[in-house]
Amino acid sequence: MKDKLSIIKIGGNVVNSPTELDRFLQDFASLEGFKILVHGGGKIASEVSASMGLEPKMSGGRRITDEQTLDVVTMVYAGLLNKKIVSKLQGLDSNAIGLSGADGNSIRAHKRVVKDLDYGFAGDVDEVGSAMIESLLRSGLCPVFCAITHDQKGQLLNTNADTIASELAKGLSRKFDVELLYCFEKDGVLEDVENEDSVVERIDARKYEQMKELGQIAEGMLPKMKNCFEALERGVSRVIIGSPDLLMDPKRKHTTLTL
Amino acid sequence: MKDKLSIIKIGGNVVNSPTELDRFLQDFASLEGFKILVHGGGKIASEVSASMGLEPKMSGGRRITDEQTLDVVTMVYAGLLNKKIVSKLQGLDSNAIGLSGADGNSIRAHKRVVKDLDYGFAGDVDEVGSAMIESLLRSGLCPVFCAITHDQKGQLLNTNADTIASELAKGLSRKFDVELLYCFEKDGVLEDVENEDSVVERIDARKYEQMKELGQIAEGMLPKMKNCFEALERGVSRVIIGSPDLLMDPKRKHTTLTL
Repeated sequence: MKDKLSIIKIGGNVVNSPTELDRFLQDFASLEGFKILVHGGGKIASEVSASMGLEPKMSGGRRITDEQTLDVVTMVYAGLLNKKIVSKLQGLDSNAIGLSGADGNSIRAHKRVVKDLDYGFAGDVDEVGSAMIESLLRSGLCPVFCAITHDQKGQLLNTNADTIASELAKGLSRKFDVELLYCFEKDGVLEDVENEDSVVERIDARKYEQMKELGQIAEGMLPKMKNCFEALERGVSRVIIGSPDLLMDPKRKHTTLTL
Repeated sequence: MKDKLSIIKIGGNVVNSPTELDRFLQDFASLEGFKILVHGGGKIASEVSASMGLEPKMSGGRRITDEQTLDVVTMVYAGLLNKKIVSKLQGLDSNAIGLSGADGNSIRAHKRVVKDLDYGFAGDVDEVGSAMIESLLRSGLCPVFCAITHDQKGQLLNTNADTIASELAKGLSRKFDVELLYCFEKDGVLEDVENEDSVVERIDARKYEQMKELGQIAEGMLPKMKNCFEALERGVSRVIIGSPDLLMDPKRKHTTLTL
């Protein structure tokens, strides 16, 4: 029997609000067993960019990472946010250790190949250093990952936090029974985006195709769902999309994904 | 026989220059045996502060850390600089892992007590997590410390990088035969500050007192030397002050401190 590992990803809605973040971290700290936290950057990177007179460049919901933008996201994600989260968890008796993918070569990536669009210093993940991460977990540490990776040739890269969470889940599923939880601002995937009560309880591959055809899944949710199904195909036991409040209230509505 | 551990601190002169930094990191990566790197922040934090419209506050050579300044140094030291150094070392086949004192509770500190001056969020070190750091070292990782600590109650603190290096050296000297090397812009401590060739080869406690009385040691060098002697008293085997080029050329002039 493999040990259970919870990988929890929080996004902008939690990270942007000190109150929400504190509440979430209290819940996260009280979770039993092996666990990993993955955090996105939220709007703070854009605010810091703006205060430095830089204009954030976006395309299709993804940030285009020029050299200055890479510096800013490295400062904000790996520095400010990661260390604030780690110190807060330490204050809650959780022995957190903050990591970028460069640290201990934990997530190796390559610069995204230029096709229609040059994403700049955006990284697509090649490999997760699962032995190193397992060793940290088993020595009682709780890894906290920001959305920065590296190419093992000296270059840092900006990588989507949802992708980091699913790559970690896939990489660690050989050693652990992995549950992957994406926390966001709704209670799950909605059948009708206008109706907060229309949470779909279970989505399998067939339902996913149906919902895509009906236009019920679109925009930002598409890459997230793609990550989820890839994770399930690669041995992750459970993938859940829901509210951060699920941590303390597992009976709360949420969406479970299955193959 | 204890294993040898080299703790090397680099300051602004190395960190501020990409060429110098690359050269140093190549030398550092090629060092055999257990090693730890400690880096200061250099002028980049002041530049980022300025570009964000903040004015750096200094007193007696030390930065006064208000909340905004703490955010900036956390971004620059723990984010930008630490991750750049780690990714460059990874590119040189050195399995670096970047740490603030909050990560794995590796350096616990307290907010400096207000006497004549309120230093703000400046941290004085209480304890080094030597078991955790030893475990990282023995699993083949090379810790890279920035000058940020925490109070284990959720607060990050700004701590002098020289102090971090000597505290690590002291904390790890029970487990390792520790050599502490402070790299700076000169070849060692100068008898005559105007004469670069006047490097003092050996300074013991008596010579130190003499030099202080003669005004040969002053300003920024005083706390550095105090750190050095404290380290020697607490079991550190060797303390050296010199140029980063010492790594590749141990016969180069330098200052050795002894009790």
